[in-house]
Amino acid sequence: MEDMNKATAVANPNIAFIKYWGKAHEALNLPANPSLSMNLAGLTTVTTVEFRPGLAADSVVIDGGPAQDQARQRVVAHLDRVRALARTDRRALVASRNDFPAGTGLASSASAFAALSLAASRAAGLVLDEGALSRLARWASGSACRSVVGGFALWEGDDDETSFAHQVAPPSFWDLRDLVAIVGREHKGVGSQQGHGLAATSPLHAARLEAVPGLLARALDAVQGRDLATLGPVVEADALAMHGVMMTSRPSLLYWLPATVAVLQAVRAWRKAGMDVFFTLDAGPNVHCLCEAARADEVEGRLRRVPGVLDVLASGPGGSVRLVDYDLF
Amino acid sequence: MEDMNKATAVANPNIAFIKYWGKAHEALNLPANPSLSMNLAGLTTVTTVEFRPGLAADSVVIDGGPAQDQARQRVVAHLDRVRALARTDRRALVASRNDFPAGTGLASSASAFAALSLAASRAAGLVLDEGALSRLARWASGSACRSVVGGFALWEGDDDETSFAHQVAPPSFWDLRDLVAIVGREHKGVGSQQGHGLAATSPLHAARLEAVPGLLARALDAVQGRDLATLGPVVEADALAMHGVMMTSRPSLLYWLPATVAVLQAVRAWRKAGMDVFFTLDAGPNVHCLCEAARADEVEGRLRRVPGVLDVLASGPGGSVRLVDYDLF
Repeated sequence: MEDMNKATAVANPNIAFIKYWGKAHEALNLPANPSLSMNLAGLTTVTTVEFRPGLAADSVVIDGGPAQDQARQRVVAHLDRVRALARTDRRALVASRNDFPAGTGLASSASAFAALSLAASRAAGLVLDEGALSRLARWASGSACRSVVGGFALWEGDDDETSFAHQVAPPSFWDLRDLVAIVGREHKGVGSQQGHGLAATSPLHAARLEAVPGLLARALDAVQGRDLATLGPVVEADALAMHGVMMTSRPSLLYWLPATVAVLQAVRAWRKAGMDVFFTLDAGPNVHCLCEAARADEVEGRLRRVPGVLDVLASGPGGSVRLVDYDLF
Repeated sequence: MEDMNKATAVANPNIAFIKYWGKAHEALNLPANPSLSMNLAGLTTVTTVEFRPGLAADSVVIDGGPAQDQARQRVVAHLDRVRALARTDRRALVASRNDFPAGTGLASSASAFAALSLAASRAAGLVLDEGALSRLARWASGSACRSVVGGFALWEGDDDETSFAHQVAPPSFWDLRDLVAIVGREHKGVGSQQGHGLAATSPLHAARLEAVPGLLARALDAVQGRDLATLGPVVEADALAMHGVMMTSRPSLLYWLPATVAVLQAVRAWRKAGMDVFFTLDAGPNVHCLCEAARADEVEGRLRRVPGVLDVLASGPGGSVRLVDYDLF
């Protein structure tokens, strides 16, 4: 079994219907509020980890090149967590590849750390249940705990022991589609990790948090009832509330580009004309457009004609993080 | 004295540094919070009013055509207030002309009702002091009370008697410039009057109101110290907070266009490169850019090169509402 110390995992990013923005505990990534998301099929991070005896240091390759500075540090810190759990001091070879643009509000750290958590824990000989794996992923990147879980995921819990994601409904439950209008590929100036720390500087942050429980309850009911007409307005409201918080934090975070607004206005105009499509945005300029499967081709075609839209990624409910039998080495 | 019953007044719109959004009393236009503004020189509404014996109904002409529906009703309702004060039942001929686009977040109702208040009250034989005139204008349109006052105006007060604007500094005190990037000329779908009523439906509204006193105190100090570096961030913060409230009200008000964001991002980029320029927005897509006089030509030139900017209106501190010796008939 020469591969006993090696494992490869695939994970999807996720789109939050109720957002995670701001932390209750900085180092532990305990969120200021519970959140609800859907994993995004077809968008993947694949990560291979091998703990190899005799290595002097971890080697981390992302998308074909050595990981730089902060990205490398976050991976090494996460390997340290796995080493502590597995009681090993072996260094690792890590290779990771994304098939979608990173750092543009597409939750690349979510899929990255979900995949790393599964690959590294298995390569270190650990078999963690879903909750433990979600909790491990959370330590690296809060939203990664949701990408561990397939389909529709609720991240709740009060403390380090209980804060992880669990499944609300499997991918097959509702063929909801997410058409992601890509309007910018540049890496954002202020990443989510830094942004979370700014949330509390906004005078609107506490008010958004107070509104979350009501919105979350409605969103959960809507997912469980496959009710887009109820889910959509709730999702838009919380996305705009989060961006209101971002814009009014100090420093102010304005993630939108001109084409972001073009898509937001287009979606509202289409809806006014009778088409059920709703938007949400993560910490970036790209716009996620939610619709039923029967509308997906039409929405994608329309999005491609909005000025400033560079590409459209078509996705639906994705599976959990999973092991695969190939590797990236 | 055949013109005794006729008067013509000129007023400027104003740009708020601390915004008025949401009312404490609907019919009386008592605001949810105090606000601070600068009148805008060069942008004018001119209004002539004549109370003429024997007229069966008020005649209201705006920009060359008969006023329609709600616009007419608001003018007639204001003439009724003046008639009540002057104890007359004569009907009036009203002609009004704007030299800037109305209904696009340029506070056209502010200049309109400031000019109407002065012209109508004088035509009815009333000589009101500035406070009384500001209060009269407030009854028609809240922000109009600020356009009555020249230069930099603070609108505060707790009840119908005390709620009006007064001068913080005259126009000559600080040659602050406002370059208004016009990015849309279409009349907005939801006007300010309707929008005010929606403010309380936003979960962020109360939080913005709580932040206002601190921001207002800093903005007042900054105006009195001619301190743009302090004023600018406060003005941006409150404008974005107001738009956060608007976007999260029910229904959601998204006044921005793609070019709105292009200007916001451009202003931030210029500032990062060392140029002191700051933005604010009213209830519309156009962006007001504040800078010192020495920078105004440079900022105007740059704004004209931002994609989607249709025109730039250059303004500075404007005077109070005032009588003129010509008329529009």
